[in-house]
Amino acid sequence: MLTVNAYATAGPTEPLRPTTIERRDLGPTDVLIDIAYAGICHSDIHTARGEWGETIYPLVPGHEIAGTVEAVGPEVTRYAVGDRVGVGCMVDSCRECAPCRAGEEQYCLKGNVGTYDAIGKDGRPTEGGYSEKVVVDEAYVLGIPEGIGLDVAAPLLCAGITLYSPLKRWGAGPGTKVAIVGLGGLGHMGVKIAKALGAEVSVLSQSLKKQEDGLRLGADHYYATGDPETFERLAGSFDLIVSTVSASVDMGAYLSLLTLDGALVNVGAPEEPLSVPAFALIGGRRSLAGSMIGGIRETQEMLDFCAEHGLGAEVEVIPAEEVNEAYDRVVASDVRYRFVIDASTLAPQG
Amino acid sequence: MLTVNAYATAGPTEPLRPTTIERRDLGPTDVLIDIAYAGICHSDIHTARGEWGETIYPLVPGHEIAGTVEAVGPEVTRYAVGDRVGVGCMVDSCRECAPCRAGEEQYCLKGNVGTYDAIGKDGRPTEGGYSEKVVVDEAYVLGIPEGIGLDVAAPLLCAGITLYSPLKRWGAGPGTKVAIVGLGGLGHMGVKIAKALGAEVSVLSQSLKKQEDGLRLGADHYYATGDPETFERLAGSFDLIVSTVSASVDMGAYLSLLTLDGALVNVGAPEEPLSVPAFALIGGRRSLAGSMIGGIRETQEMLDFCAEHGLGAEVEVIPAEEVNEAYDRVVASDVRYRFVIDASTLAPQG
Repeated sequence: MLTVNAYATAGPTEPLRPTTIERRDLGPTDVLIDIAYAGICHSDIHTARGEWGETIYPLVPGHEIAGTVEAVGPEVTRYAVGDRVGVGCMVDSCRECAPCRAGEEQYCLKGNVGTYDAIGKDGRPTEGGYSEKVVVDEAYVLGIPEGIGLDVAAPLLCAGITLYSPLKRWGAGPGTKVAIVGLGGLGHMGVKIAKALGAEVSVLSQSLKKQEDGLRLGADHYYATGDPETFERLAGSFDLIVSTVSASVDMGAYLSLLTLDGALVNVGAPEEPLSVPAFALIGGRRSLAGSMIGGIRETQEMLDFCAEHGLGAEVEVIPAEEVNEAYDRVVASDVRYRFVIDASTLAPQG
Repeated sequence: MLTVNAYATAGPTEPLRPTTIERRDLGPTDVLIDIAYAGICHSDIHTARGEWGETIYPLVPGHEIAGTVEAVGPEVTRYAVGDRVGVGCMVDSCRECAPCRAGEEQYCLKGNVGTYDAIGKDGRPTEGGYSEKVVVDEAYVLGIPEGIGLDVAAPLLCAGITLYSPLKRWGAGPGTKVAIVGLGGLGHMGVKIAKALGAEVSVLSQSLKKQEDGLRLGADHYYATGDPETFERLAGSFDLIVSTVSASVDMGAYLSLLTLDGALVNVGAPEEPLSVPAFALIGGRRSLAGSMIGGIRETQEMLDFCAEHGLGAEVEVIPAEEVNEAYDRVVASDVRYRFVIDASTLAPQG
């Protein structure tokens, strides 16, 4: 067992505080990763604050992990010491069900094993990336290509794949018009990836506050959804809308923006059920869908794609001691566009 | 102008009564159809009773029309006198927009011209199939192949294509598991068509009351949705669910029956917005979609497919004077499975 510094929360209303945790001894196919950066995802906050049902406390969040391989088990074949690697939202799955066999481990029928707040195959709670090191089976470790900094790569492991997967699946590419709803941690990666895929990209944001950013990140157009005229002007315009917001929105209004056969894909998950007028679907053979991160193979494809196109997240690197403040700023949408914890600061200071 | 017998309603609470209406003189590309049968669709009732917004009264309903060509305009090339033909839910569209050019006239961006309760290009209200004859541009007339009786063919023009189109589009075929929700006028055609396409077909109905019928029509399985165990047993089972019901149902429960990447397609249109838990979509990359009849080309394809597979609707042929009673029975779901008016009985009796 290896004792490493980490940040954990003891309960839904507790701040994150420095602690130490144990990492398991390397199994035959395990990789020990020396974590360099861990992104802060809104899901970390929901889980830390117990907003998504029962959380296993103490909790070490973090599923946007980038680092280097420090050691490998005797049967590891994919990675070697020194390799640049990442870990995303899952660290295991049943490997036998149809989705697992199809490389869609995120939809494992027995439930994938989350990087934190889950029970690993060893029976112990998993603990995430706000820690100095982590041990993960090589089958759930991604290679981070040269050419992407580990800091800007970390958020790709969740935010990047969460957008890449639906954009690819629903055909974003040359000749298609794609809208990204919300320009936050997820949305800004959606703009970059959709643009790199060749689509004509629009941002639909509440206001024009971040318009300059949106255009700089690659959007061709930027519209304020707070302006009702937007919905009139853009009726029937988009082949694909990917919504990253978890607030409840007027689904009928957004569906009306789709072309015939268009799809609105939710990757943000509003807690309240969506209220969907059936005629908005029927009248244009439209689809409302959902998508959840991506499989291991597709996550690697996404990382390779990002490297090829020079894409990384826009990050604000912070020391671990600022994590609680960062949480509040994420909730207030006051981040452009992803906080990333510098894991070298996880040891207790002073 | 040609005066013909018809049945019309004068207002939302009025019964249908015998009347006469005028059919226009044949234009160059018009076809005069001697109607043999007209199906009674639930939409007829919604429109007759003013339940779908403003109805143009007096209203002659009927958009499941089968008959023979009695005369053709000088430029008609597709049909000749004596041909067996049908007319469905639309009699015109702009013919210029992208959906029209793609053969998806039902989604015409300017709105297709409904077979009744619409304004035709001549500026006069359109009047439907509860009449002895109708004049329709040949581009919106379908050929009914030999081998399907005109009585059992009539309902194919709406009920048939409404199910055929989504079943084809969402890939019903060998190796797929398809569920049809509701075994009524639409649903029973769904069972027949899905089976003929090669899918493994289940009916999801409130009770097992029509189970024997369902299996006789071709279903492999029949389940009662009134039994909560049904949803547990069938979780993750279906690649495609086509819902024909217009009652509000528990969308989360139905979505949970879909496999990874499965789709639930509504062809029935509940008036209340659907309440859709986002996680039910996201957790299996599922889609909720809608579909509305089909284009002219696809409707012809459906008729040819039905002829090839010996499919027609299950009908109860009634004289026109029983239409009001039939309406009440449709509303009470007391029909197996489609009423069809014998158009030879439209002349006032006695």
